[in-house]
Amino acid sequence: MNYCPDCAQPVIVTIPEKDNRPRHTCKSCASVHYENPKMVVGTIPLWNDKILLCKRNIEPRKGYWTLPAGYLENNETVEEGARRETEEETGAILTNLQPYRLFDIVHVSQMYCMFLAELTAPNFHATEESQDVRLFDEADIPWDEIAFPVINTLLHHFFVDRKRGSFTFLIDQITERMHTNC
Amino acid sequence: MNYCPDCAQPVIVTIPEKDNRPRHTCKSCASVHYENPKMVVGTIPLWNDKILLCKRNIEPRKGYWTLPAGYLENNETVEEGARRETEEETGAILTNLQPYRLFDIVHVSQMYCMFLAELTAPNFHATEESQDVRLFDEADIPWDEIAFPVINTLLHHFFVDRKRGSFTFLIDQITERMHTNC
Repeated sequence: MNYCPDCAQPVIVTIPEKDNRPRHTCKSCASVHYENPKMVVGTIPLWNDKILLCKRNIEPRKGYWTLPAGYLENNETVEEGARRETEEETGAILTNLQPYRLFDIVHVSQMYCMFLAELTAPNFHATEESQDVRLFDEADIPWDEIAFPVINTLLHHFFVDRKRGSFTFLIDQITERMHTNC
Repeated sequence: MNYCPDCAQPVIVTIPEKDNRPRHTCKSCASVHYENPKMVVGTIPLWNDKILLCKRNIEPRKGYWTLPAGYLENNETVEEGARRETEEETGAILTNLQPYRLFDIVHVSQMYCMFLAELTAPNFHATEESQDVRLFDEADIPWDEIAFPVINTLLHHFFVDRKRGSFTFLIDQITERMHTNC
């Protein structure tokens, strides 16, 4: 941010009165422009014992496999957002969504809220955002071609929980080091 | 948003190519400025059977009772944010945080991620943001002076769950109607 979105004058980064963090602040109109973490919402779409993955058709990580997920929009619930992203990226219609993981990714100021979900039918297809969409057995997951550490971690959590037969909701963290190692 | 924060030219609201929602868009430098829901984080701080509430010292709803909560900041986890807000608003230090509710409040594009937590000691005090901070028994909760519907709902959920002896994490929604009725 270089200019005030309200009055177009240059902004400075300074700690406002009664605050304790630097913010983009306009000396001309006195407005303070806060920046906050963004929520990504998505799903682990299941059909029997298989998981639906999509091969990214857009950068970053074009050609790598991921789970359907994207930014939550204003005026939608996290569950609505997770359904919408899944439908947009895979064409699949979901039922029985259950909250499964909330991942903090603090070095990029994102959260991922991921649901377990079931396909209503084995209907899905490539889309603008996904050059391929396929169901995978655990043994066939393309571990070396997963797009992001959060998706890698989430899939590992899921298979561990499935062996235990328990899918308790948890909050966990993806660190910068996990990103570097990916 | 009236002006582009990147180049200071006027923005228009239009649906960008390959998108399906109106966004603030700069015709001059071609940047698109997305707006997304904000996450509020907070706690139900417990000391034995009592709940710590704070009386707001700032608008909106100055003089009404609430639970400690506030906007999640960049580069912090939801749990760190919930601890920080509690300490800022009440002086209390927490332990044993457990995720309890995620509320979607779509008509204001907010989410509330609320934790159950225990005080490490019965130490708390009025702060810049709270003109009074007090422990309440269930029978003494000032139901007619609760600041926001999300706090009212959360406290009701908590007392129901405590009777049942089960505090499962859930995602729920606060509607505009619940706001109007408050």
